[in-house]
Amino acid sequence: MKQKELIGFQGLESYKALCSLAESPIDLTQPGVLNRERINQMVSSACGIKMLYATERVTEGVIAALLRLAEESRLIEKLQSMYSGDVINHIEGYPSDCRAVLHVAVRDFFGESICQSSALDAMVLAKEEFNRLEYFIKKINSTDRFTDLVFVGIGGSELGPKTLYSSLPAYYRSDRKVHFLCNLDPDNASRIARDIDLKKTMVVVASKSGTTLETVTNERYMRFMFEEAGLDPKDHFVSVSCTGTPMDDKNMYLECFHIWDYVGGRFSLTSMIGGVMLAFGLGIDVYREILRGANAMDRAVLNRDIRKNPAMLAALLAVWNRNFLNYPGLAVVPYSDAMRGFCAYIQQVEMESNGKRIDRLGHLVDFNTCPLVFGEPGPNAQHSFFQLLHQGTNITPVEFMGFKESQFGDDLEIDHSTSQDKLLANLFAQSIALATGKQSDNPNQAFPGNRPSHILLSKRLDPYTLGALLSFHEHKAAFQGFIWNINSFDQEGVQLGKVLANRIIDLMVARRKGESGPGMYAEGEAYLDQIESM
Amino acid sequence: MKQKELIGFQGLESYKALCSLAESPIDLTQPGVLNRERINQMVSSACGIKMLYATERVTEGVIAALLRLAEESRLIEKLQSMYSGDVINHIEGYPSDCRAVLHVAVRDFFGESICQSSALDAMVLAKEEFNRLEYFIKKINSTDRFTDLVFVGIGGSELGPKTLYSSLPAYYRSDRKVHFLCNLDPDNASRIARDIDLKKTMVVVASKSGTTLETVTNERYMRFMFEEAGLDPKDHFVSVSCTGTPMDDKNMYLECFHIWDYVGGRFSLTSMIGGVMLAFGLGIDVYREILRGANAMDRAVLNRDIRKNPAMLAALLAVWNRNFLNYPGLAVVPYSDAMRGFCAYIQQVEMESNGKRIDRLGHLVDFNTCPLVFGEPGPNAQHSFFQLLHQGTNITPVEFMGFKESQFGDDLEIDHSTSQDKLLANLFAQSIALATGKQSDNPNQAFPGNRPSHILLSKRLDPYTLGALLSFHEHKAAFQGFIWNINSFDQEGVQLGKVLANRIIDLMVARRKGESGPGMYAEGEAYLDQIESM
Repeated sequence: MKQKELIGFQGLESYKALCSLAESPIDLTQPGVLNRERINQMVSSACGIKMLYATERVTEGVIAALLRLAEESRLIEKLQSMYSGDVINHIEGYPSDCRAVLHVAVRDFFGESICQSSALDAMVLAKEEFNRLEYFIKKINSTDRFTDLVFVGIGGSELGPKTLYSSLPAYYRSDRKVHFLCNLDPDNASRIARDIDLKKTMVVVASKSGTTLETVTNERYMRFMFEEAGLDPKDHFVSVSCTGTPMDDKNMYLECFHIWDYVGGRFSLTSMIGGVMLAFGLGIDVYREILRGANAMDRAVLNRDIRKNPAMLAALLAVWNRNFLNYPGLAVVPYSDAMRGFCAYIQQVEMESNGKRIDRLGHLVDFNTCPLVFGEPGPNAQHSFFQLLHQGTNITPVEFMGFKESQFGDDLEIDHSTSQDKLLANLFAQSIALATGKQSDNPNQAFPGNRPSHILLSKRLDPYTLGALLSFHEHKAAFQGFIWNINSFDQEGVQLGKVLANRIIDLMVARRKGESGPGMYAEGEAYLDQIESM
Repeated sequence: MKQKELIGFQGLESYKALCSLAESPIDLTQPGVLNRERINQMVSSACGIKMLYATERVTEGVIAALLRLAEESRLIEKLQSMYSGDVINHIEGYPSDCRAVLHVAVRDFFGESICQSSALDAMVLAKEEFNRLEYFIKKINSTDRFTDLVFVGIGGSELGPKTLYSSLPAYYRSDRKVHFLCNLDPDNASRIARDIDLKKTMVVVASKSGTTLETVTNERYMRFMFEEAGLDPKDHFVSVSCTGTPMDDKNMYLECFHIWDYVGGRFSLTSMIGGVMLAFGLGIDVYREILRGANAMDRAVLNRDIRKNPAMLAALLAVWNRNFLNYPGLAVVPYSDAMRGFCAYIQQVEMESNGKRIDRLGHLVDFNTCPLVFGEPGPNAQHSFFQLLHQGTNITPVEFMGFKESQFGDDLEIDHSTSQDKLLANLFAQSIALATGKQSDNPNQAFPGNRPSHILLSKRLDPYTLGALLSFHEHKAAFQGFIWNINSFDQEGVQLGKVLANRIIDLMVARRKGESGPGMYAEGEAYLDQIESM
């Protein structure tokens, strides 16, 4: 196993095959190439998500080579190893994280367990937390004490939970509102303070370590507000963190919920990090449905048949686009107003997981890893960056998402078509236009085409589908990391900024006390001079 | 003048000089290079915005060559031509837009006019509209008829106006609320409908052409809701469009405001497109201050001295990063919670303006134009895509934005520093960390550095500063277009998708009526089959 790993990505047989296939990828602009048969054939489905990939620049030959890449990279075996609780968050031979990666365990409650051996313990612990939450929420629901919830967190304890909440507006409890206090910017707190009645507000503080600067600062800010209003924070504040952190303290909180070091920040949204807030704002049943959908996809990704494993296929296509066709970006465009936040969540999952330059043996890689991931909802984005997608100098692959039905179910037929019809028509049209392009004697009205995309189609953005979609993207990122043989589960790249920020904060404090010496931190001094002279 | 234009970007003397300078750009990781003197020296300021660029990979030699590029590209002359009402939205020799570009005229109300010759007429017309709005808002304010405003628009009539509104939460009128109905997704309308009392709601419909599919659909949807509720839309609906469009009809609207074809969509936010909503939600004085700030920057960009023209300098640095150091992206990171939407606005301004592949003579360019622009607010983004910025395989320049003071002015000192202090410390720390990097024997804890950025620093995000910042970005995009000699003011790239979407809508309607033949639109049919079988 170790020996096999020494054969890096570029040493694989399939790598060479794909290089030669990439020399003349299929030309989608040729009349008849993007035909009905191709569209109907190039489909992969799981958990109610249908991935249509006829508009990617692939042939059956490319798909076959990508499948060999999946085999040679031992994608399924690596996933099984993850599901068994093996220590895969690790760089061999260097001090590094040494952790299992078990976010799938916190939702493995449905049917026969997919977690194996030591991961089963993680599942049992998570189930206990879920039961504790169910009991807690039942108690909360039995009174009308709380109408609002302020969620305090950042990073992994922000984007994911916020995305899940904001993606399900039709499921909001009408008697409750959730607010997100995630930015150090004091304006974030000021804005929320104007909207809530502290007496009726619960505060959920989420930090894996219990020490995150932004979260601790905002928590103390909120506690100060409660105390100023003559309220005892202990009656309002709930914490979610690892056991044994400063936040795991029943003397300070109404209740303390737990996660574990093997649930990474950006993968923690389905754990109690997201769970407490979701169960409050959407109800425990909605939260359970999200978990059920995620768990269903956690199962589907074990399938070696790519017609039934769209997440694995999406990862392979991403590698094809990134390493063989050499595209530097990826646009994520959901045709859904509620999924506005989902783009930032995917950006985090992909870029923090795979924005790495060394492999799991500590070697500098000599190929490209994660592309630049960005997105906005369609059709709005059509009136923004789609100009560049269609006619820019570089090619950017697109992941479209769409739903057969709207979430609320209200609609109106205008000129014989509903808004939902028009929405889907735009989605399909963009995918076709990017692929086929258009010739014209007027160079400004010519579209070069051959700009790849795929579509993730589902029936409706319900909690189950949302869970399946998030698991899809978690595993898509993990599969890419497995192929590149990098560690997708750490984030050493955030450390240096933290260290320097603390040095500058120290400098600010020293200056305020008149204690700063000239040599304390020259660059920091210069920037502080610039701000002070404004 | 025509002859000079035939010398393209790559034919310029400065281009060659920059190519050779780019072979060995300054190494910011060397100890002492990013020093106090460099930080204090590399500053350009205008309108209260200070641009700090010591962390870009430039020397005085590079700046001198970039200034020659500005001269050779005749940036200031092209801007003057724009301010004079010349037809610069145009591709020579081909059917194309043939328009002046006069968004600066709609705010040229402060002091001596910067608009010249025919542009002066545009300024006079715009001032008349402003006066009409002032009168209209005074009438609205004299009653408490309206508490809510639903803004219906998309694209240029969405991102800009929404960004201006959402960037100024401390200025919201406490008795009024603004909602944005911009997505075709019927859930957008459903969500808003649950939050408003139609009786007390004004609807502002903004579409330059008066025929935008998404906007017309959403307007009709809203009219239907009003009629269902027994209300006459004419008492509630206000339109903003060009004179003579279907929306310029006093029989249909409470009031009709105007723009003109020489105000491009993505540049229309300071015109009545944004104005009516802003004057309602923030007050006419706040709207006027935004215009005053934008106009001040419209003046500053005429300065040939780059120490006093940060927008021109930013454009030159963007070209240096894109065409000489060959970076494919740009991250925009405001350290301000309120500026969350500003990133999407900049993305639109840059990518729709400069995501082009032909020059103004219709020739295919053989260099890169607009990079991939994306962003999220800091410090939140530090916990998301910053991992890739610090340790990814590609380099992505960053534009940071920050403010000395918060907008609301509330704050709390915790451990001797305020939240605002900590926010700024993080901003400066990231810029330094990206530039200098960090050596380490542990490859996973090494930071390669030499990742360029600059910081836009202002005193406070007030309406004037917001206006100046938006004008900064408009002109930064325009300057880049002038250098590349492309037309930054059209958007032909959005047309093909529109045409195909209409074909698919027709197909849907035909299917519903049982009238579709097999050969009507095969690709469209295949996608409709896929959705129907879900």
